[in-house]
Amino acid sequence: MEKFEIDILGCGAALPTPKRLSSAQIVNIREKLFMLDCAEGTQMALRKSHIAFSRLQAIFLTHLHGDHVFGLLGMLSTFGLLGRIQELHIYGPTDLQRVFQPQIDYFCADSTYKIILHEIDTKTPQTIYEDRSVTVSTLPLKHRVPCCGYLFREKPTAPHIRRDAIDAFLIPISQINNIKAGMDWTTPDGEIIPNHLLTTPPAPTRSYAYCTDTSYRPQLANLLKGTTCIYHEATFTTEHALLAKKTHHSTATQAAEIARAAQADRLILGHFSSRYKSEDALLKEAQQIFHNTVLAEDGMRITL
Amino acid sequence: MEKFEIDILGCGAALPTPKRLSSAQIVNIREKLFMLDCAEGTQMALRKSHIAFSRLQAIFLTHLHGDHVFGLLGMLSTFGLLGRIQELHIYGPTDLQRVFQPQIDYFCADSTYKIILHEIDTKTPQTIYEDRSVTVSTLPLKHRVPCCGYLFREKPTAPHIRRDAIDAFLIPISQINNIKAGMDWTTPDGEIIPNHLLTTPPAPTRSYAYCTDTSYRPQLANLLKGTTCIYHEATFTTEHALLAKKTHHSTATQAAEIARAAQADRLILGHFSSRYKSEDALLKEAQQIFHNTVLAEDGMRITL
Repeated sequence: MEKFEIDILGCGAALPTPKRLSSAQIVNIREKLFMLDCAEGTQMALRKSHIAFSRLQAIFLTHLHGDHVFGLLGMLSTFGLLGRIQELHIYGPTDLQRVFQPQIDYFCADSTYKIILHEIDTKTPQTIYEDRSVTVSTLPLKHRVPCCGYLFREKPTAPHIRRDAIDAFLIPISQINNIKAGMDWTTPDGEIIPNHLLTTPPAPTRSYAYCTDTSYRPQLANLLKGTTCIYHEATFTTEHALLAKKTHHSTATQAAEIARAAQADRLILGHFSSRYKSEDALLKEAQQIFHNTVLAEDGMRITL
Repeated sequence: MEKFEIDILGCGAALPTPKRLSSAQIVNIREKLFMLDCAEGTQMALRKSHIAFSRLQAIFLTHLHGDHVFGLLGMLSTFGLLGRIQELHIYGPTDLQRVFQPQIDYFCADSTYKIILHEIDTKTPQTIYEDRSVTVSTLPLKHRVPCCGYLFREKPTAPHIRRDAIDAFLIPISQINNIKAGMDWTTPDGEIIPNHLLTTPPAPTRSYAYCTDTSYRPQLANLLKGTTCIYHEATFTTEHALLAKKTHHSTATQAAEIARAAQADRLILGHFSSRYKSEDALLKEAQQIFHNTVLAEDGMRITL
């Protein structure tokens, strides 16, 4: 199966500690890397993880709160010092240009590569990035400032060739790409062998949704139907549900409700308030609603 | 002796790693804290060190290169989240306002405390901060952008009272503060006991100089005469002297020349290029010129 991995670099809420950074992740789809949020310390976490960050294609920022963006300038600057050439695209809400362009101009003036900022509309779900392997779409969220999550959907790969059928019908190697692309085979006798007898279907496509920061938004589940894996913020336990509502965050129960309604395969909880000494209570309350739930932790790798 | 300590939070050059942050230090003088530079990750290092950062009075930035300032916004923001009330003064070169005020306004809008930026002239040595315990003066340095070091000089404490003399002359406790302040004592018989018989001199005052980033600047030693402890950048070994000159940095030998010419007591080398797997070569070449040299390391505490 082609690679589809998530590396969690940081999964804490607003206050980073020596043990847990604020929000940052890497999505690796077929060896192309995408970053989700970029908290202070992300460049050190990248180095620690030995991720080949020269393969980073684009950065997607959910919103412009410090705990999601304070590592951006340092990382961009370091890429320049290390001689990056490939241009880097950064997507984020309104104000991205106003807040970051002057800083980039000031601190990355000697940069060896081009940094391109894209301001996106966080209110309407839309596809904002597409390449041969993946589409990335926005997921409107509800927070104190404009904010959206991101949904990564891998594109189907070609069907697999049935080696036995190729041999049986004496199909030349030169025709294999055509058959992978859907062509039927006509034998020298004029018999048509339909494509489905020559191939087996590709692996089902996988998807990953990153949803932080947000208050409980039941309609979000409609956009997440059948998602393979959802990362949803769970800043608080239900005990602090009022505080969650007031600060536009979610409880672990609410995160699990989203995963259940979306009929997702897996749920990862993250963006933990630093008030909890252990996140076991968060996990327990989520698992009562959606069993296949895990707690994020810094340095964790998830393979889809 | 009153407290005068330096905590090195980071001592690497431009590229931070999981093991070594870029530049940041805390100077603790009589339980008042001052910060020197603020690299990315400084707030995490502060927490790790268990330094009581609510006692931070002021931050002194040498220059506006990312590896000296990228931790500032995150730390200021965290202080706000933790409910700091006391105002915080930040000193730095030209552009401090232009670069940081918009960021502070954007990311620390809900801050509970006042942040006051002071732009300083880096070219003329001058005292820019003074309180009951210390003066802080600028040390002009030569780098690719406006840059200065900082010299901390503690103020003399009061002389020590000689308990035996107080007893011998039956001096009442109410008079002790006057005698500490320099008053002679007149006995009931009219005999004048000069102050120097009633007191012993206070401990000699100590000083700490923070000199980074800079090319070799021999005249700097004039401003550092008799300094107790000098931290001087030593980005390169003499083998890379040309590179040092080109990038406006110093070699370890040059740092040691400054300490020797200044007749300092101690030298700390820092701001190490990440090209060296070990800094032993830097230490060796410096010690040939100035014996009392040590290598900085993250987490090190120096007591003067």
